[in-house]
Amino acid sequence: MEFSSNDLDDLLAGITPVDVDIMAQSQHKLDNLTKPLGALGKLEYVAKQLCGIQQSLAPSVAVKKILTFAGDHGVVAEGVSAVPAEVTPQMVYNFLSGGAGVNVLAAHVGAEVRVVDVGVAVPLDNDGLICRKVKAGTDNIRLGAAMSEEEALRAIGVGVEVARQAMDDGAGILGTGEMGIGNTTSSAALFAAFLGLPAAEITGRGTGIDDAMLAHKIEVIDDALLVNKARLTSPLAILAALGGLEIAALTGMILAAAQQRVAVVVDGFISSAAALVAIRMEPKVVDFLFFSHMSAEQGHRFFFHEVGLQPLLHLDLRLGEGTGAALAMNIIEASVKILTEMATFAEAGVAGAEELGVEQA
Amino acid sequence: MEFSSNDLDDLLAGITPVDVDIMAQSQHKLDNLTKPLGALGKLEYVAKQLCGIQQSLAPSVAVKKILTFAGDHGVVAEGVSAVPAEVTPQMVYNFLSGGAGVNVLAAHVGAEVRVVDVGVAVPLDNDGLICRKVKAGTDNIRLGAAMSEEEALRAIGVGVEVARQAMDDGAGILGTGEMGIGNTTSSAALFAAFLGLPAAEITGRGTGIDDAMLAHKIEVIDDALLVNKARLTSPLAILAALGGLEIAALTGMILAAAQQRVAVVVDGFISSAAALVAIRMEPKVVDFLFFSHMSAEQGHRFFFHEVGLQPLLHLDLRLGEGTGAALAMNIIEASVKILTEMATFAEAGVAGAEELGVEQA
Repeated sequence: MEFSSNDLDDLLAGITPVDVDIMAQSQHKLDNLTKPLGALGKLEYVAKQLCGIQQSLAPSVAVKKILTFAGDHGVVAEGVSAVPAEVTPQMVYNFLSGGAGVNVLAAHVGAEVRVVDVGVAVPLDNDGLICRKVKAGTDNIRLGAAMSEEEALRAIGVGVEVARQAMDDGAGILGTGEMGIGNTTSSAALFAAFLGLPAAEITGRGTGIDDAMLAHKIEVIDDALLVNKARLTSPLAILAALGGLEIAALTGMILAAAQQRVAVVVDGFISSAAALVAIRMEPKVVDFLFFSHMSAEQGHRFFFHEVGLQPLLHLDLRLGEGTGAALAMNIIEASVKILTEMATFAEAGVAGAEELGVEQA
Repeated sequence: MEFSSNDLDDLLAGITPVDVDIMAQSQHKLDNLTKPLGALGKLEYVAKQLCGIQQSLAPSVAVKKILTFAGDHGVVAEGVSAVPAEVTPQMVYNFLSGGAGVNVLAAHVGAEVRVVDVGVAVPLDNDGLICRKVKAGTDNIRLGAAMSEEEALRAIGVGVEVARQAMDDGAGILGTGEMGIGNTTSSAALFAAFLGLPAAEITGRGTGIDDAMLAHKIEVIDDALLVNKARLTSPLAILAALGGLEIAALTGMILAAAQQRVAVVVDGFISSAAALVAIRMEPKVVDFLFFSHMSAEQGHRFFFHEVGLQPLLHLDLRLGEGTGAALAMNIIEASVKILTEMATFAEAGVAGAEELGVEQA
């Protein structure tokens, strides 16, 4: 699919704010349900936000789809991962045959998983796989740019296309997922570049490297930041220099969803890097996102701290694939049901906040 | 139902440890699934613990029941709550007609809610209500004991009976729930007595009191601890002196479940007080419990810190009823599916931890 910088500009220009009037109405509705004011905590926040996103007091997230993009990373040649690059295609097959963590958790919450090859290093052509390979893996970011801006745009376009198809197929909420050996390295580099954080702070153990490999991984990221320094001039340029093809596709998916006022559940560390690219391209995007969980990957907490956001779950997950997004979808759906199915004080004949003289928050 | 101190002794003596051999086997099984070692964090911990509880590598939590006990509190006369005692029976009716938060969230996760009157101040006799009133509310703990030890035993017996019925009806997992205006006061008093914490630290705003009422609530709890000081000689005696009838029933429910090797999902602040009583009666009980969430009620974090436990969710809930238990049941069921439905490295043809020379944790 062709996707030009003009297409990106049009997409960004088409993103409009969440509806604060509807959100105020939803707060009033929440405050009249049979519970103390605010007693359902983050569930109430989520329900209100969804009302603003969907411009409805009865938002629907019944149809849920997780889009899992796969891509390889040239930087794996530097020995930054405990796992060889061959595992990327092996896991893609695992997704397609339904045996991976994301398959199990998506089925558990009633979500469909769609798997997209946007940049796996080896040829893949399997039943059920959405084949949109832009390039057979990125180039080694320690030596130069991961990809050209044209390639990054094409990968963004893949995400846009697959997200639009999912929404055309009825999705009321989308979840991000990814697979790509080496992509915690790419993500840490992106966080370092966007947030101005030292690599040592944002870099973690990925699939499980030891202290020596971690020190090496940090060095590789520092080198990548240095060699690409002149290229880090815009969100798109940073994405192309340090990102991954699956990360670029996730950025596109997030932008397309925000444009159509569909909420996106952001999975973990890598998906958050894609979300940060999207937010830096268009800050209004942040209001269309729910961050599913605080990853066990150590840098994730610095990301949340820097951007002033909070994730829904704290389960020490660090698998990616969309597993955290799946679990969070269940919480988000619960919040919708609270808003739409609970009795009000009047309906239930329960003494309400107003009657009791409790101040409305 | 009669329930004597001999019955309690027999119940406690019948609680046996979780099966550490099966837990070791489950760890091996988890480590061979197609994911990095430990990458599913707390889900893996939960799955392993359930194996030890049910003595099975394929534990089942498909049948889920939340038991919500209601009782009133004489201490409400001291003006410790933002909400009048009449709300206790009103909310019981709301539970029975399906309009409360716990109804919505239990239905969302596929759990049944059973509602038990163990001590509501006014007569209740409605379709669907399990009527086991021990006493029409506790006495005012600022003036003396909440109830006699015999009454506490009878309330424990109610919890035992209702839990056993739920397990006879096939429940593979139970969730705790409660309703009782004033019961954050009683719970804070119990935590203070058991943990030796000052009331000022463990006491929170309950349904939403202001600073002046909070200071008064702390004073009332300090007075209750002082007036009952000589009675605080055993877990049962502390429960009778400072507890609630619904809290005593929850203690009984937890003990009965542990005896039959059924996991209990502990809801929030008040349910945790009941869990603490049960743990102090028999420490082995703790291994049969999952703590659903960190309540927004401030004292809850001190409880977790003191007992060295971690809750599953951090959603700023403070509603009780069993709402947090319901949400956590979904996470717990997800963990079982991970254990029983994910492909192994061998099945999926994915390079595994051993093959890669990654050290087994």
